[in-house]
This record gives sequence, structure tokens and C-alpha cells, in this order.
Amino acid sequence: MALSSEIEAAMQGSLERLASCWQCPISANTSRRGNLAGQQAVHKVLHNLISILFPGCHGDQPVSEEGLSQCVPTLLRSTLEPLQEQVRRAFEYECGRHPCPEDCCECAIQSGRAVAAFVGELPQIQNVLQADIVAAYEGDPAAKSTMEVVMSYPGVYAIIVHRLAHELYRADVPLIPRIMSEYAHSQTGIDIHPGATIGGGFFIDHGTGVVIGETCVIGRNVKIYQGVTLGALSFKKDEEGRLVKGIKRHPDVGENTVIYAGATILGGETVIGANSVIGGNVWLTHSVPPGAKVYNQQPKPLIRESDGRWKVADGPWNDVGAGI
Amino acid sequence: MALSSEIEAAMQGSLERLASCWQCPISANTSRRGNLAGQQAVHKVLHNLISILFPGCHGDQPVSEEGLSQCVPTLLRSTLEPLQEQVRRAFEYECGRHPCPEDCCECAIQSGRAVAAFVGELPQIQNVLQADIVAAYEGDPAAKSTMEVVMSYPGVYAIIVHRLAHELYRADVPLIPRIMSEYAHSQTGIDIHPGATIGGGFFIDHGTGVVIGETCVIGRNVKIYQGVTLGALSFKKDEEGRLVKGIKRHPDVGENTVIYAGATILGGETVIGANSVIGGNVWLTHSVPPGAKVYNQQPKPLIRESDGRWKVADGPWNDVGAGI
Amino acid sequence: MALSSEIEAAMQGSLERLASCWQCPISANTSRRGNLAGQQAVHKVLHNLISILFPGCHGDQPVSEEGLSQCVPTLLRSTLEPLQEQVRRAFEYECGRHPCPEDCCECAIQSGRAVAAFVGELPQIQNVLQADIVAAYEGDPAAKSTMEVVMSYPGVYAIIVHRLAHELYRADVPLIPRIMSEYAHSQTGIDIHPGATIGGGFFIDHGTGVVIGETCVIGRNVKIYQGVTLGALSFKKDEEGRLVKGIKRHPDVGENTVIYAGATILGGETVIGANSVIGGNVWLTHSVPPGAKVYNQQPKPLIRESDGRWKVADGPWNDVGAGI
Repeated sequence: MALSSEIEAAMQGSLERLASCWQCPISANTSRRGNLAGQQAVHKVLHNLISILFPGCHGDQPVSEEGLSQCVPTLLRSTLEPLQEQVRRAFEYECGRHPCPEDCCECAIQSGRAVAAFVGELPQIQNVLQADIVAAYEGDPAAKSTMEVVMSYPGVYAIIVHRLAHELYRADVPLIPRIMSEYAHSQTGIDIHPGATIGGGFFIDHGTGVVIGETCVIGRNVKIYQGVTLGALSFKKDEEGRLVKGIKRHPDVGENTVIYAGATILGGETVIGANSVIGGNVWLTHSVPPGAKVYNQQPKPLIRESDGRWKVADGPWNDVGAGI
Repeated sequence: MALSSEIEAAMQGSLERLASCWQCPISANTSRRGNLAGQQAVHKVLHNLISILFPGCHGDQPVSEEGLSQCVPTLLRSTLEPLQEQVRRAFEYECGRHPCPEDCCECAIQSGRAVAAFVGELPQIQNVLQADIVAAYEGDPAAKSTMEVVMSYPGVYAIIVHRLAHELYRADVPLIPRIMSEYAHSQTGIDIHPGATIGGGFFIDHGTGVVIGETCVIGRNVKIYQGVTLGALSFKKDEEGRLVKGIKRHPDVGENTVIYAGATILGGETVIGANSVIGGNVWLTHSVPPGAKVYNQQPKPLIRESDGRWKVADGPWNDVGAGI
Repeated sequence: MALSSEIEAAMQGSLERLASCWQCPISANTSRRGNLAGQQAVHKVLHNLISILFPGCHGDQPVSEEGLSQCVPTLLRSTLEPLQEQVRRAFEYECGRHPCPEDCCECAIQSGRAVAAFVGELPQIQNVLQADIVAAYEGDPAAKSTMEVVMSYPGVYAIIVHRLAHELYRADVPLIPRIMSEYAHSQTGIDIHPGATIGGGFFIDHGTGVVIGETCVIGRNVKIYQGVTLGALSFKKDEEGRLVKGIKRHPDVGENTVIYAGATILGGETVIGANSVIGGNVWLTHSVPPGAKVYNQQPKPLIRESDGRWKVADGPWNDVGAGI
């Protein structure tokens, strides 16, 4: 259907003004400026990498036995080629933005190194993910099989993407790691910054609303529930009042610790000792020693029964740790 | 662009080690092992089923009048064929994992029965969903029409998927129900285990962060807001310290009950009586009688006004149930 | 694979009963009844509009320099044509539902006006979004570049979609604005009703679980964290017990205010004064003056150290505002 004359006129008037703003570096990604691969190209690479780590699980069909030995290597090659290209563009984009030290602009070399390091780590990533999957299966009474865990658990998907994105982050690749982690965030509601360092055997159950900050360091075999925040206590500002970037802002969590739903743990100097249990909705801004158990005292809800009278609801209100 | 020699070398080194891990049953889904349909094949079946229940609403265009009488039956057939195939594979996968009693391996028969039962229930599912849609329209002042509810409400999408997945769960179909429910979780932030039993006229508003556990039983005309958890109080372990699976772990909620945002209700022995109201952020680990109203006493935030003095913020802090 | 006879029989039995329910106006969207574009057609228009505001960022590749001057105008035209069509159908759908005053049924004219107004506002929307992007970059220590913000931040994606949907909402377009905003909700976990009025320089960090109601009015340079609800205090009902629709139900928030994670602010008469700070998990149902700081007193979690003794955990428990 043709546009109405009214719309036609409005469109012509708007196009020129829109064009003036495409010149803003923050809105246009063109072959001359930005020249980045674009969000969806990164998503495609991510999807292929997951298919390589878990053949046949995230696609449309199982793979054939030959597929394992033949198609997967082909898929890996056809994934690394665009990845190499995207990584190079991302380095070039950063070069364009910053005053560069002499040797910094060899972006092709940098990207070759970064992608080589990344692909070299893939087997190790796959091994660690096996431990994560076992942790999910053993940590959830509802889990019927490890295959169910691989095919359906959002917490497992989030850690798969994180371990891939974190490897690119460690290689100083700009932009791409965060695009990957935010894709996982959009799929799962779990927001793990690619900078976070997370040990093996990690399991997030349910997961919606989890936030794990850039400078967190989490030990092995940690279990976290929905709505947990490992965040920043407050932001340092420089003398011009700008946020200081790149400092330790988020907590450390020791191995074998469990953090229940809705707990909020803040601050770069906060350390949760190994083998601790942090109860639901606990708010912590200070360190706790190894083996600690931290629980809020139970709230005592009031209940009005049908006879209209109010009383404190039944509950183990003095039993610290009830419901944990 | 060809791969750099560096990347080429790293890739060759990694492929062999990756291959060794494809032998882990928990990572590879091949035509010889797992032989499952794969995540996306299940998503496609789910999408078609929704198009059959609500023709023209979730696609690209309205359907023609003939479409209703002709295309939809064709679509149903072309959806049930892959579903039958997927269900059979899922049963066979389970057979492969467990020591089977004599008659258990007739997976084709089992899957035929399961899919027949499922398709036989579709009209009943459609009827119940009509009641869910009316509940959403009548329960939300922002709802402009029932069509808006069907086309845009995440809580409605989540219950549509749940009622389909639950029917397959009831037929003991492995894997597929959970893949369906986790797809809805990724689309809506609402995590309903396919095992949960939920009466008609059910409405979840906003919904992000809602968790409803496998063994919940929810009566008719219940209304739930974002961030509500109906979860497990703690996990029983056997003498070897493994989680005991398959026991009643989650609460029951009586009909006509309303549960406001962020409430957490835990435990398999917890029963919320019919016609109750559970206030925002209430933490409940014990049963309440029918007609109960349960509210947290208001927190009393401190406020520092521009003159620098602190005082208790205005608010109906002694008015139990304020803000509900 | 052919359907088993069992499934074949069950399918035939179900089809007739399904058909009877396609006649319910709330389930079928046909070319004779509803005749709406369908959810995915709206998603496609939305995606194109974002590509026009931020060329090359959300697609598969950067755009060429010619693309900016040539392809984008072509894309805009090919987006407005289906949008015009969808908007017309949406108006016609509403006409069909309500008794219409004499002059109301000129739906083509109405839709022409609405789309013309919308496209005329696109440059202004683009300008405001530039301010939102700068606010995100300056408000988050983890942000490495404004391009990273555009390409990956869910809070930025949510406000982009909101500003588009809100413009159609202001033009009284039925259905489509909410389908757009719920698409953003599914991608980000951020639920902003298209009716909400939000000033420039708005930033939502992390964002999962945020709810912003239809009648909220938010000033310039406001910053909000994950899990914040700006919601309704309670719903008025008419004498027949039906919810009263279309009244002011949600709070106003003054400019330069910061609201930390998990705060809940409710009620249509609640006004947060400019330059205020609302602490994490605060529950507010009353207004606060400009420059106010509102914090919950810290909970004092109990900690059991390895020696088995319980004590109040270390923490600035009397330091109001700690952790903010």
C-alpha cells in the first residue's frame, strides 16, 4: 500500500534531520567509521561455538557420527573466519578512538594472537563446562538427566556463554565479549560481566535477576540462586566528578559457598570465605570468615484470619536460617 | 578472509582434544547416542502449537477464513509428525539410560500413546486458556482489549506454554516439556516447571523473576505478581548425601488467592488457604488458613531532607497492609 | 514419519472442538475478524526502525557510506508502508469493538495522521536517545565506549524501544505500542509500559525486573537499577467491582534522581522530589521532598562462625546509607 501524502511529506522532512545525526559516532556503524561486525554477526558466531562444544544439542537435529568428525571441524573453521574478521575490526575501532602507543596499531597481528589464544583454550573451556553441568544436575532435585540440563537450563547456558566471552575479554578484545554476555543476559535474565572470574562446578539455579560484576572472583563449586547481586558498593569519582573506571569494585566468593535467592553482596573489599552459606535476601557489605553462615532474622508477618483478628503468623521466627 | 597461520595451528591442536570430549554423553547428541531432536526443533513445534490455539495472533499476518478451516488442520498434522518423532526419540533416550523393565522399551508405542493423549487434550487446554485470558484482561487496569492480552502479555504467553508442556509432562515425556518451559522462561522471565499443577483463570502480571516449582498445586483464579517464588524450603539428601528427587517440595495455593510482588513462599508442607492475600515481599514457610491476609509490617525508611536532618519518612507505617 | 492411527484418531476428534473456539474473538485473528498484522510483523517493523536510528549497529554488518544516504531512506519507506497498514488495521479493530461516534470510523485517515506524526518525531527521538546513551556511558564504570553501550546495553535497548512505542501510544494507536514494549521486555527483562513519560538522559543499569507503570512521569537524568518497581498502590473498582481503567496510578520521579536496586515506589499520588536518592530495597508509598535521601536501616544478619557461635555480622549497621 502506498504511503499517504501526509506520511510522505513527514518522511522527507525527517530524513534530512536523521542524516545529520548519523554523523554522531555513537549512532552510525559504517564501513568507513566504526566498521564493526554488528550485533547479530556476533550472536551467530556465539551460536556456532556452542554447537561445537555441545554438538547436536542446541540445533534442530542430532549430528551424525560422521558429523562429529567431519562437519564440526568445518563448522569451527567457518566460525573462526568471521570471528577473526570481527575481532580485527574491534581492535581497529579501539585504535581509532585512542591515542595509540607506537606498536599498538598492528590490529591484524593483535587479532590473530587473540583468536589463536581463544581457540587454543576451547578444549579447556569444554572440560570446565562438563564440571558445571554435573554441578547443575547434582544440585537440582528437579534435574532428570544431564542432557536435560544441557538442553534447557538457563544457568548452564549463561555459564557456557560466560566462559567463551571471558576468554575473549582476557585477550583484551573490545566490544565482542560484552555483546556475547548481554546476549546470554537477554536469553536468561542472568547478567554476568565477561570480566568476572568464575571457578569450575558453578551452578546458577532459576537465575532470573542474577547480577555478577566485572571484578568478581568466584571459587570452585559455588551455587547461586535467582536474584543474587554481586555488585559495587559505590563508585569512586575523580576530581572532575567522573567515575573512575577499571578498579576492583565487586566481591570475592570462596569455594563451595551457597548464596540463596535475593541476597545482595556489595563491594570490592568484601570477601565471602570458603564453605559459607549466605541466606535469602541477606544484605552484606562486609567480609565474612570461611565456614560462616549468614542469615537474616526472620521477618514476622502479621496475619488476619477470617474472624478479623490480627496475630503474628506461625513460623520458626526465632529459628535462624529457617527456610534455607 | 583466510585464517592466520597462528589460528590455523591452534585450531588443529584444539580439534583433537575437543573430539575426545564429544564422547562424553553429556555433551554430544548424535544419531547413534542421544539422537534427540535438538532444542530448536522443540521450539518450532511449540510455536506451531500456539499458532493453532490462537490462529493469526503470534505470526506475521492474520489468517484467512479458509485458513481456519483448511490451513490450520494441515499445520496441526505437520506439527504432530515431528512431535511424534521427537517424543519417540526422547523415550528411547531414557530407555538407553536406565535398566528397563521388560515391557518398557516399546518406545514407539509409548510415544504414540503420549502424543495421542496430548492432542486429545488440546481443546480442553484452549478452553482453560480462554479463562486465563479473561482473568488477565479483568485483572489489569492497563489492559485495553483481550486481543492485546493475547498478543503481548508475557504472563499469558508463559501460561500458554505451561499448559502445553504440563500435558506432555503428565504423559511422562522426557526432556521436551522442560525445553518448552525454559523457552517460555527465556522469553518472559517467568520460570514455571512443567510439573506444576495450575487451575484456570490464572494470571501473572509483569512476571519477571517469578519461580513456580515442580510440585506446586495452585487453585483456580489465582493472581501473582513479578518476583514471586513458590519454591523448596530445603533439599532432603540420602545417606550418601545425594539429593532425593521426586518428592513434594513446593507449596499449595488455594483458589482466589492474590500474591503480591516479591513474596517468597517455601516448602512442600506449606498450604496457602483459599481467598488469601499475601503482601509484597512476605517470606512464608508455614501454612495460613483460608481467608488469611499476610503482610509484612512496613519498614520505616529514614529520610534526610535538604536541611540535613534525618527523620522517619512519612508513611502509613503502622497501617498493616498499606501499599497492597 | 506418518502419524500413528491413535494420534490420527485423536487429532480428528480435537480439530472440530478446536474450530469451535476459533470463533471466540479472543483467540482468532482472521482477515474477516481481527485482521491485525500479527506479533512478528510488529517486531520486524520495530527492528527496522532501530536500524534506521542506529545504522549498522543492530544488524549483521556495518552499512556502507552510500548505505547511509541511499539504503536507509529506502529502508524507512519499506518500513512505513507496513506500519501504516498495521496501524490502520489496529484502528479498524478498535472501531469494530466499540460503539463509534459518527466521525470515528475514518480509520485510514486516523492512521495516516498517526504515522505521519510518528515519523515526524523520529529525529527528535534520535536526539533524546543520544542523551540516554551518554548517560549510560557516564553512569557505568564498566562501560568501555559509547558504541559498546549502543550495541550491548539492555537498558539502552529498552529505552530505544520505549521512545518509539510511546510516540505511537501518544497517537492513540491501539495494540502496536504494547506489542513493541513487551518485545523489549522479553529481550531485556525491563517492563516499561508505552504510556510512561520519561525525560532525556535516562539510564537503567542491569535492568532485569524493572517495572515502570503506564502513568509514571519521570524527569530528566534519572538513573534506575535492576528490580526497581514504579507501580500502582491499589486498584479502584467501580460499583460493579470492575477495575476502573485510565486513572493516574503510578508515581512521579523528579529529575536527577537515583533509585537503587530493588526499591519499590507505589501510588499515583507519590512524588519523588528532584535530586533525591532512594536506597536499595526501600518501600515507599508516600511523597518525599526534593533533595531527599531515603534509606532502609541496615538489616543486621546473624553470622555463625566455624566455632559454632552466633554473632551480629560486621557491618556499618548504624551507618544509614551504607552500601549505597
